[in-house]
Amino acid sequence: LMVWIEVSGADMKFPSIPDKTPFTPLVVMELAEDTNEEAVTWLTSRIKDTQQSGGAELMIDRLTLDDNQDPKKENQNIFIVGASRERLLVGAEDVGLVKEFNDGSMRGFTYANRENFKGFQGDGDNFLSMAECQFIVKHELDTLRARGETHVPGYPKIRLYPGKSVVRRIQSKGILVQIFPLHDKEELKRLSSMWYQNVQLSFQPLDDIRHYFGESLALYFGFLEYFTLAMVPMALIGMPYYLFDWEDYDKYVLFAVFNLVWSTVFLETWKRFSASLAYSWGTLSRKKAFEEPRPGFHGVLGINPVTGRQEPVYSSTKRQLRIYLVSVPFVLLCLYLSLCVMMVYFSAEGLVLGLHDEEPTFWTSLLLYVPSIIYAVVIEIMNRIYRYAAEFLTDWENHRLESSYQNHLTLKVLVFNFLNCFASLFYIAFMMQDMQLLRQSLATLLITSQILNQFVEAFLPFWLQKRRNKRVHRRSGKVSPDQELPFDQQVMLEADMSTYLGTFDDYLELFLLFGYVSLFSCVYPLAALLAVLNNVTEVYSDALKMCRVFKRPFSEPGADIGVWQLAFESMSVIAVVTNCALIGMSPQMKSYFPDSETQLILVVATVEHVFLAFKFILAFVIPDVPRHIQIKLARVEFESMEALKKKVMYTVLRHFSRSGEYGNLKRCKCLQ
Amino acid sequence: LMVWIEVSGADMKFPSIPDKTPFTPLVVMELAEDTNEEAVTWLTSRIKDTQQSGGAELMIDRLTLDDNQDPKKENQNIFIVGASRERLLVGAEDVGLVKEFNDGSMRGFTYANRENFKGFQGDGDNFLSMAECQFIVKHELDTLRARGETHVPGYPKIRLYPGKSVVRRIQSKGILVQIFPLHDKEELKRLSSMWYQNVQLSFQPLDDIRHYFGESLALYFGFLEYFTLAMVPMALIGMPYYLFDWEDYDKYVLFAVFNLVWSTVFLETWKRFSASLAYSWGTLSRKKAFEEPRPGFHGVLGINPVTGRQEPVYSSTKRQLRIYLVSVPFVLLCLYLSLCVMMVYFSAEGLVLGLHDEEPTFWTSLLLYVPSIIYAVVIEIMNRIYRYAAEFLTDWENHRLESSYQNHLTLKVLVFNFLNCFASLFYIAFMMQDMQLLRQSLATLLITSQILNQFVEAFLPFWLQKRRNKRVHRRSGKVSPDQELPFDQQVMLEADMSTYLGTFDDYLELFLLFGYVSLFSCVYPLAALLAVLNNVTEVYSDALKMCRVFKRPFSEPGADIGVWQLAFESMSVIAVVTNCALIGMSPQMKSYFPDSETQLILVVATVEHVFLAFKFILAFVIPDVPRHIQIKLARVEFESMEALKKKVMYTVLRHFSRSGEYGNLKRCKCLQ
Repeated sequence: LMVWIEVSGADMKFPSIPDKTPFTPLVVMELAEDTNEEAVTWLTSRIKDTQQSGGAELMIDRLTLDDNQDPKKENQNIFIVGASRERLLVGAEDVGLVKEFNDGSMRGFTYANRENFKGFQGDGDNFLSMAECQFIVKHELDTLRARGETHVPGYPKIRLYPGKSVVRRIQSKGILVQIFPLHDKEELKRLSSMWYQNVQLSFQPLDDIRHYFGESLALYFGFLEYFTLAMVPMALIGMPYYLFDWEDYDKYVLFAVFNLVWSTVFLETWKRFSASLAYSWGTLSRKKAFEEPRPGFHGVLGINPVTGRQEPVYSSTKRQLRIYLVSVPFVLLCLYLSLCVMMVYFSAEGLVLGLHDEEPTFWTSLLLYVPSIIYAVVIEIMNRIYRYAAEFLTDWENHRLESSYQNHLTLKVLVFNFLNCFASLFYIAFMMQDMQLLRQSLATLLITSQILNQFVEAFLPFWLQKRRNKRVHRRSGKVSPDQELPFDQQVMLEADMSTYLGTFDDYLELFLLFGYVSLFSCVYPLAALLAVLNNVTEVYSDALKMCRVFKRPFSEPGADIGVWQLAFESMSVIAVVTNCALIGMSPQMKSYFPDSETQLILVVATVEHVFLAFKFILAFVIPDVPRHIQIKLARVEFESMEALKKKVMYTVLRHFSRSGEYGNLKRCKCLQ
Repeated sequence: LMVWIEVSGADMKFPSIPDKTPFTPLVVMELAEDTNEEAVTWLTSRIKDTQQSGGAELMIDRLTLDDNQDPKKENQNIFIVGASRERLLVGAEDVGLVKEFNDGSMRGFTYANRENFKGFQGDGDNFLSMAECQFIVKHELDTLRARGETHVPGYPKIRLYPGKSVVRRIQSKGILVQIFPLHDKEELKRLSSMWYQNVQLSFQPLDDIRHYFGESLALYFGFLEYFTLAMVPMALIGMPYYLFDWEDYDKYVLFAVFNLVWSTVFLETWKRFSASLAYSWGTLSRKKAFEEPRPGFHGVLGINPVTGRQEPVYSSTKRQLRIYLVSVPFVLLCLYLSLCVMMVYFSAEGLVLGLHDEEPTFWTSLLLYVPSIIYAVVIEIMNRIYRYAAEFLTDWENHRLESSYQNHLTLKVLVFNFLNCFASLFYIAFMMQDMQLLRQSLATLLITSQILNQFVEAFLPFWLQKRRNKRVHRRSGKVSPDQELPFDQQVMLEADMSTYLGTFDDYLELFLLFGYVSLFSCVYPLAALLAVLNNVTEVYSDALKMCRVFKRPFSEPGADIGVWQLAFESMSVIAVVTNCALIGMSPQMKSYFPDSETQLILVVATVEHVFLAFKFILAFVIPDVPRHIQIKLARVEFESMEALKKKVMYTVLRHFSRSGEYGNLKRCKCLQ
């Protein structure tokens, strides 16, 4: 699909209006090369149609490719979508955007009231960010519904029924290959220089990240930063343990206690911090629109009990049965298999070690590494197969909503990854009870995983993308990669970039890191320091990959980190149990209770329960939303209720005066 | 205050309009006997004033007492409050009443739309229940606000400021002695016969209870019934243990496991059941109005940040300091004292037992009972003092909202009662490890507490009230207590009944009972049977006391049992820990691990953790609201959002056509 054609004439500056499109290009839709022309005509006309006649009222134009290139080789079905300023403002109300009002409060944007919002000047040209405009266009395309059409023109087999989302239908049927928002070179350059290009000691520009990438991603980077900062005290406290070789368990106990309290407080205060962020970004008080079914959802045509619209329906009992009778047993089986593989690994290692001890040669010392390498490879393969299977199963469970699909997938992958990463450590800690080996394995896992991750995830793709960019630039006659490409080629270049699949893998990485730091913190206090180092580089590599490697993702409104909050909290509960157990097992602890191991265990168990209770009480006592934001939210709520009441009183009084019943009311009083 | 005067003429049938009040009497307000007449005139005129001029637009009339009695002895300041039908319907909208719509869904009642609600016929005479009308009158009285008055007329010291609730002010200053809704003799008779007068094997008439007493109380009785039914299987399984003297710990383990799973499931399904009840009663989807400060709340006059109204404000930091620096240490001190008293009791008992064993005489065998009796008396005294102190402290914490006051008070009382009731059992179980004694104590506590409770709480007051009724009837010339009293005397009789202080003590009783049943279930399976018996009689005694002993309480809308759900869930978590510990301590269990006590403890601890994890997963997996109700709620939400959107589109289009911008939009499209 690599095509780059020189547009006749001068360079076009993006995002200013290019020669051939009479509007600001926002979103690119790529249809399949062999799409029936009838379908293309129908689709573009539906997108252009006024809202009153059921269209999306957007602007769409085919991307004209230069004819220097062989047009046969290129996909001619690439379309640029944009919208008029007024359409975007009306759309902002449709999607329920919340903006800062003149009085400093956050309110749902309404077109009628637009001039009372902060930052709305003149026609409201810079009121909406480009990311918001793209989000609005995406939403309007998604909610473009079939009217009378029984099928997609030119495709009698792709049926449509009234109310069905057209774009989702053609996407799931492969006519729409991809849809993505365009990068804004100017803003991206500004953002990059603030964010990662200069090594500096400052916070990330979260507001700018949100402005360019949307709330969900900005919350991820916010969490990454918060998590890193929260670990700095732990890293500082952990350092002397390493420097002075403190093997004293009293000190380890102190460290573990600090760690447990700290991780609880950190997770609770993060909730408050993210609520502040989400409030200032307008997502905390945002009313969610009714969710459309996800593209892959299928079922018998029926009536949705909520909307009353025709759409596929699928029995929830059937889905439950699929989950509990197939998915859950499958996941459990996989967990069991993974444990078996681990046991094989440990016995193989024992065997090899025995062999080497018996008759140490060069070959046996090489053989020592074989089980570990095989185990690492097998785990990686299992991980990939499992991921594929989990996606397949979750798809087969046929969830109606994207959010519910994501939650079920996340849970499946999370459980498996947790076991894969930590089972061997648990085995070493509690079965073999070899603290030296545990510390070693922890260090190896931490260091290798973070180096590998960042290389595979960011620097390798970055390097590949850079090479591609250079090639494109060379072919289009620009020598330096800093020079602007013609608009058409820029679009084609972006169409060819990899797609960012969401924050899942990034959060997963942090989750596992959190596990390494907290689960065994009392035997390896240095973990926090390594984690801090990892996170600092992670900020840079993630920023790099978002800005340079991937297509721009559609901004996603989010008020919190969702299921990950729960995952991190569960991890911190498990950490209480493991740390208490580790402390209980330490020889230093045992020497306090020389006579009775029973008493030691009882003391440890009691302490553990007290800790758990303390955690729950702390989580209960600390409010999730800071007070000043609670007050602001309550004020808006109160005002809207008062307004409603006034409206109601007005209606009632009008009704009374019309029907003469108000006279009745008065008469009743006269009776007294 | 006992006065009953014969109204000239025949009997009046309640709630039909009595001779002297030209409206249906709903609520009684009793002002202090020595209230300044100026204040009375001002208050009644404010209550009668139209809403437009800031009044409550209700009807109010002084209760005329017969002059056969000496008027000096009687309080002449008793007022009857009512309202016109239309006023009540408008008020129903004010308080946010949710009613069944014609299409079967539950919707917020609006006056304008009143004819589309189910059961609204003609003028809507029987649309609102009497309890609802009384609640509306109460709400309208509570929200009657001062306008220009700087103080209550006749009381220069009782200051008022604009927006201050008049009724709450005069109530906290003692001018308003009490305000209560009137009983409806007819409906009460019907309800009694369905509810408790005939011993029958049927469910309680929850809908009728709610109709007469409101949602909060109906939820209490619903919970009581649900709890009882949930314990029936446990009682049935527990019986053979008693009958056949099963001392076999395998069987006890089975029973405990069943108990733990069952109590989790029971609490989770109760949430679903209560959501169904609350949905059908319209409280689940009810929007809460902004809460007014509670009458006792004081502070410097300031601006409420939410409403923008003038009201006393009190620094939340100060309150937090009072809570954490005074209340929490005080509660901890009390808990410590209570433990000390318990230790003294146990050592005294040991002493007496030793004395008796040494030289058993009649006197020493009597002496055996002394410590228990003293301990019971001391506990009762401590309970009362603590309750008083808790109320004082919570009052002093100066909570703005009644709900927050209640929560803090509940928590304080709950913790102390928990310790008082269970500390001795814990001591016997885990320190003395005497299972025989534990079983004995459990049985004694269960049986005596339930007999005492029901006697003190229901039958004694009922008997006292009955005597009073008889006296009233005799004096008014009616011989049989079934005969109707004249209206005035009925009012005076009700004014003199005790006030029901809310469901707190009733829930507390159930909570402690749940503790007896679940905490030590594996040593005393018969507890469930005793609890079932207790609950069955509890239904009758509680019903009796609500219908015959107390003033009618104002109905309180409630969607769930609030803080009690949390309390019961916490108790079931503690039950997991205690049951596992008891099982681990049993000699039969120990015989499985003859070599190593350590291993036994580790196994028990593991099982306990698995149980706890299982509980949390179960609580997470079972949705709190049944699916069909979720769908109904989502439908109403969706429809209101659609309606809003339509309204918005209409506004926007009108705006466009007015300002000519719609032409712009069209022009933009032409550009393509």
